[in-house]
Amino acid sequence: MSKIKVGVIGATGMVGQNYLRLLSNHPWFEVAYLAASPRSAGKSFSEAVAGRWLMSTPIPEQYKDLVVGDAGNIKEELGKCSIIFSAVNMEKEKIKELELAYAGEGFAVVSNNSAHRHTADVPMLVPEVNHEHTDIIPDQRRHYGWDTGLLAVKPNCSVQSYVTPIHALKEAGYNVDKMIVTTLQAVSGAGYPGPSSYDLLDNVVPYIGGEEEKSELEPQKIFGKIEEGRFIHDDSIKISAHCNRVPVIDGHTACVSIRFQDKKPEINEIIQIWEGFKSLPQRLELPSAPEHPIIVRHEADRPQPRRDRDMDKAMAVSVGRLRECNVFDYRFVGLSHNTVRGAAGGAILMAELLTAEEYIK
Amino acid sequence: MSKIKVGVIGATGMVGQNYLRLLSNHPWFEVAYLAASPRSAGKSFSEAVAGRWLMSTPIPEQYKDLVVGDAGNIKEELGKCSIIFSAVNMEKEKIKELELAYAGEGFAVVSNNSAHRHTADVPMLVPEVNHEHTDIIPDQRRHYGWDTGLLAVKPNCSVQSYVTPIHALKEAGYNVDKMIVTTLQAVSGAGYPGPSSYDLLDNVVPYIGGEEEKSELEPQKIFGKIEEGRFIHDDSIKISAHCNRVPVIDGHTACVSIRFQDKKPEINEIIQIWEGFKSLPQRLELPSAPEHPIIVRHEADRPQPRRDRDMDKAMAVSVGRLRECNVFDYRFVGLSHNTVRGAAGGAILMAELLTAEEYIK
Amino acid sequence: MSKIKVGVIGATGMVGQNYLRLLSNHPWFEVAYLAASPRSAGKSFSEAVAGRWLMSTPIPEQYKDLVVGDAGNIKEELGKCSIIFSAVNMEKEKIKELELAYAGEGFAVVSNNSAHRHTADVPMLVPEVNHEHTDIIPDQRRHYGWDTGLLAVKPNCSVQSYVTPIHALKEAGYNVDKMIVTTLQAVSGAGYPGPSSYDLLDNVVPYIGGEEEKSELEPQKIFGKIEEGRFIHDDSIKISAHCNRVPVIDGHTACVSIRFQDKKPEINEIIQIWEGFKSLPQRLELPSAPEHPIIVRHEADRPQPRRDRDMDKAMAVSVGRLRECNVFDYRFVGLSHNTVRGAAGGAILMAELLTAEEYIK
Amino acid sequence: MSKIKVGVIGATGMVGQNYLRLLSNHPWFEVAYLAASPRSAGKSFSEAVAGRWLMSTPIPEQYKDLVVGDAGNIKEELGKCSIIFSAVNMEKEKIKELELAYAGEGFAVVSNNSAHRHTADVPMLVPEVNHEHTDIIPDQRRHYGWDTGLLAVKPNCSVQSYVTPIHALKEAGYNVDKMIVTTLQAVSGAGYPGPSSYDLLDNVVPYIGGEEEKSELEPQKIFGKIEEGRFIHDDSIKISAHCNRVPVIDGHTACVSIRFQDKKPEINEIIQIWEGFKSLPQRLELPSAPEHPIIVRHEADRPQPRRDRDMDKAMAVSVGRLRECNVFDYRFVGLSHNTVRGAAGGAILMAELLTAEEYIK
Repeated sequence: MSKIKVGVIGATGMVGQNYLRLLSNHPWFEVAYLAASPRSAGKSFSEAVAGRWLMSTPIPEQYKDLVVGDAGNIKEELGKCSIIFSAVNMEKEKIKELELAYAGEGFAVVSNNSAHRHTADVPMLVPEVNHEHTDIIPDQRRHYGWDTGLLAVKPNCSVQSYVTPIHALKEAGYNVDKMIVTTLQAVSGAGYPGPSSYDLLDNVVPYIGGEEEKSELEPQKIFGKIEEGRFIHDDSIKISAHCNRVPVIDGHTACVSIRFQDKKPEINEIIQIWEGFKSLPQRLELPSAPEHPIIVRHEADRPQPRRDRDMDKAMAVSVGRLRECNVFDYRFVGLSHNTVRGAAGGAILMAELLTAEEYIK
Repeated sequence: MSKIKVGVIGATGMVGQNYLRLLSNHPWFEVAYLAASPRSAGKSFSEAVAGRWLMSTPIPEQYKDLVVGDAGNIKEELGKCSIIFSAVNMEKEKIKELELAYAGEGFAVVSNNSAHRHTADVPMLVPEVNHEHTDIIPDQRRHYGWDTGLLAVKPNCSVQSYVTPIHALKEAGYNVDKMIVTTLQAVSGAGYPGPSSYDLLDNVVPYIGGEEEKSELEPQKIFGKIEEGRFIHDDSIKISAHCNRVPVIDGHTACVSIRFQDKKPEINEIIQIWEGFKSLPQRLELPSAPEHPIIVRHEADRPQPRRDRDMDKAMAVSVGRLRECNVFDYRFVGLSHNTVRGAAGGAILMAELLTAEEYIK
Repeated sequence: MSKIKVGVIGATGMVGQNYLRLLSNHPWFEVAYLAASPRSAGKSFSEAVAGRWLMSTPIPEQYKDLVVGDAGNIKEELGKCSIIFSAVNMEKEKIKELELAYAGEGFAVVSNNSAHRHTADVPMLVPEVNHEHTDIIPDQRRHYGWDTGLLAVKPNCSVQSYVTPIHALKEAGYNVDKMIVTTLQAVSGAGYPGPSSYDLLDNVVPYIGGEEEKSELEPQKIFGKIEEGRFIHDDSIKISAHCNRVPVIDGHTACVSIRFQDKKPEINEIIQIWEGFKSLPQRLELPSAPEHPIIVRHEADRPQPRRDRDMDKAMAVSVGRLRECNVFDYRFVGLSHNTVRGAAGGAILMAELLTAEEYIK
Repeated sequence: MSKIKVGVIGATGMVGQNYLRLLSNHPWFEVAYLAASPRSAGKSFSEAVAGRWLMSTPIPEQYKDLVVGDAGNIKEELGKCSIIFSAVNMEKEKIKELELAYAGEGFAVVSNNSAHRHTADVPMLVPEVNHEHTDIIPDQRRHYGWDTGLLAVKPNCSVQSYVTPIHALKEAGYNVDKMIVTTLQAVSGAGYPGPSSYDLLDNVVPYIGGEEEKSELEPQKIFGKIEEGRFIHDDSIKISAHCNRVPVIDGHTACVSIRFQDKKPEINEIIQIWEGFKSLPQRLELPSAPEHPIIVRHEADRPQPRRDRDMDKAMAVSVGRLRECNVFDYRFVGLSHNTVRGAAGGAILMAELLTAEEYIK
């Protein structure tokens, strides 16, 4: 089978570079097109990122001589690829238009941007959690009059460390209704250059603009339902988030206290649920799916970002320190790799799911 | 008035050095005696700490030639000082005995150790919060048969960032009954050498042994009452703590969500209460008392440890980000300097209070 | 005596803020005027720096309500102050013009900028090293037709850790002719925001644009002579510099290997020379002069930036690890506080010197 | 071909763990025996390292249930393996005896320890640099009366960043005779726990005990010759080293100034020499050999530890910033991964070389 051709728009930024790194040996996808801002357009990719390649592996050879297109000029791309991974950095309204325009031209658009996260018929996917939300695509296509086009988005990186564990419990019949979470987030989550060294050496910053709202609201859509072609939020779960920036390169940590709606499991049962949790991406053996979406650490002091972020291709969520809470029922620590699981890797997994389900051909 | 002579036992460790630094120009107290482990005994202080002076100001001249005593040998100290600041590092039972023995010899013992924090007639003081707990000293003296001796302890450094703000609200008639707190604690809180660089560079450790229990239980004693010569805990406040070690030198940050028992204040009222809060140490103008025990920051991203820990002689608690909570009533961020307010500075303030109240002469 | 009125232009940047912090209680100088870019002009200082006050002490009260002027509009300033501390951030040619224009209006301009460092009749001063370079001021005034105006600049922060120790040896008759130095420089040296956390966490960057050239060339002017109204470089000293950025907030460290031109001192003699070194600022008892310009550390592992940068009002250079070199004669480690000694503090000391010498009245 | 069985002694420490990680999928070697201190002996490996597995990949399954032996009890090991990788941590004289004893029992001992680095007939190998030093093994065997036993050691991690580039130049006919190097070394080089966070946050430590001597002396043996069955140092190269500890996890950086003995190459020629350099490990296609032992970075600000340490299986030396030196001929920055190239990976490459040369069978 020949590989599906994909394009990455916003290819020169940090998320774009992660896409390129992760796609460089992908068994199903092949990068055929790169685009960025007009400033980079027309240059070879090596020139365009000169001195700004941020990954700790070299630029994969196959990209070096690709000529970078102008992300705003969709026509250039026609016929070159089927999937567009969007990691552009523009103002929100422009991104909304651009992503719709790409889908309108027949591309399957898989986006990291927050612009369309609350568009009523756009699914916001964590493939292990709400894969059934892809069911909205026929409605979406009908609504916009698209044929092969589609638009799916991934949620904010901060929610990845807790939505999968909470979902696994819900699926086992235990519904969380209140949750207080404090995140300790890595600097790569802010893109490049992101926070200044002067702000983060010997320091933490207890504020990330817009992050708490996303961390509280997005899970309600992820846990929601489709009704009449649009997503209805699940507001039975109330989340309060404190988001902090800490001097860590990659890996968001979350300290979570949860209360169950009615019945609550024993600690051992929770551990069993988490360790046994598998979902559609695992059953479909999607290439980027972690073998175990949730890894339970039994040491007293884990998970830790530097030690656990790379587990299972950096796609697993590591949890640990499950213990009773004096105020709610339980507390635990969750951790995920924000630029892989929480960004490019999560989006590639979405594209794999949409391909396996034949929404992308 | 001649100064009161004080001794510091455990003088060579990090807390001991902070005592010496803070006491070097104290208007009421004068260090007349230093003691440490038998290994240091008999050496001059400069020799004893050689290469291990951890402060960023030089060793004050007056200590350099003091001969270090053996902390375990109380008789040496008799007649040399009235107050003993205890920062020894031994096993818990030994500390318990040693501190009682010092008090038995007539010293006013002010301790940083956790050993006696839950001894029923030993006050655990945050002078702005529970200064009336010194009322137990006559009972304590009666119970142990002490004449001038006394024993008072300070709570764990992690609680300083939230007990004062919570207390100020209680005093204004607003009782918090549930509270979930996540701390981001500095490495100096672990003493020296403390956590390895290998553990904390590009990392956070979501666990500090024993710290969560202290953070949850100690406030109940601090907010408690004296009945029949012993402290009765206030268990109307339930606290759940997540304690993390972060790569910060000094300054513990706390992300706090609180629920009020019954009536709740408006945000503006809370700010007024905090900004206006003064207590006995301020009214007595104790030398180490901060002018404003609670400093409210109005910027979106404050307090931050490196920027706010040194405010008001490093004795103030800085709070900020007061906002509504989706799950409880409000959330905020609190910050205090763990080795000053939370350790040596807090203990010196206790000694000043006990002196002003004439328990120490 | 009433205080001399001074203005700070570029008052909202990191160096400007350091000026304000250091001048807030100055015995001779009083800040009467603040200016910054047109964007800040017309606002109160508190508004202009809102959320960008970077110091770890609060904004001194006296500045909060000062109305910020436009640094480019010199007329505004006339009559308000005698000294202008320049910390503006513009392109080099504009700074050159602006500083000359200020001097032309009669101000004594003391600048942190590199723009005029190699102007032939502008002294580049380290007051303990080349205070006699102020002798050029009459020539300078004659050349430009200035009456009370003058222009003096301070050298780059990176040279402060080694020029004073080298000078002390020269003065004792021991001339260094070759020197290889590797600097480990703090992030505050790059201003704010400066290097990204993503670039410096778990990393060092072995390059700082333009810094090596400055580190090599500026000492030749500092050690130079005045001939016919212009500075002649001392090119008998050849310096090769490797400049690195390291994850340190403040404090530049230099690892130095030196060769003497002809005769060389013994190690003990060097230590005596350094410990005994005093210069004109000490003899004049200038308010910002450190008591000991060079502090010799005898521990095996000092100086270190966090522990030694603040010594003697952060104005001393700390040196240590003096030992023989296998290739040259000796090696040592020097350290100085880059934003105090190496920037605002050094410039204030220059202004004090110029005042004591009655060039400023 | 069945794999050669190897043992790792000192298996629970940081270097030992790196061995296990790197050997877990080795094409030639298979770990058949693990040993550590008596405290760990008798436990399964998982138990023995419980909570102290420091790698960021999980413990490879095949080691978890291996029973850890007592490194001091050689008899246990007889018949279980042919190669012993030694990473024990004891006092020097004990290590010397122990390693000789292992070789005496017929093991090929490949050691990370410094104990035997200056034993006259023990080769200290950087396989790309002095592979011909294995020629001493017949002499060694004759001298000690060993049959299959042998002892080879690797040099200190700090020298790896510069000996290969210097060697490549020597081989091309350009001999360096003077060299001043300043290293910025990662914390993992000190083993675990290594330096305290309190010592390295917002700080650098300009001293590492014993490191400068090793950095200066070991290259003289590496570049030396065998004469009459013993190594004669090459003292035509004089090195002066300044060694610093910096807050970096892995990767030692070296700022190097070099002078050539007589003729000197042009910059372009040096780059050609480095980029074209290959040696015996590359020609033999040893499994751990990097394809390019020296990678030349052309960006202004590289190499950097976090970005370049992992290049080519973390076995390449990255160099950059080659430029003229004002004092010597040239300067450059070198970088290598200290726990891989500079420790376990370098030792495994030595064992591969010894196997390819049939000293190990």
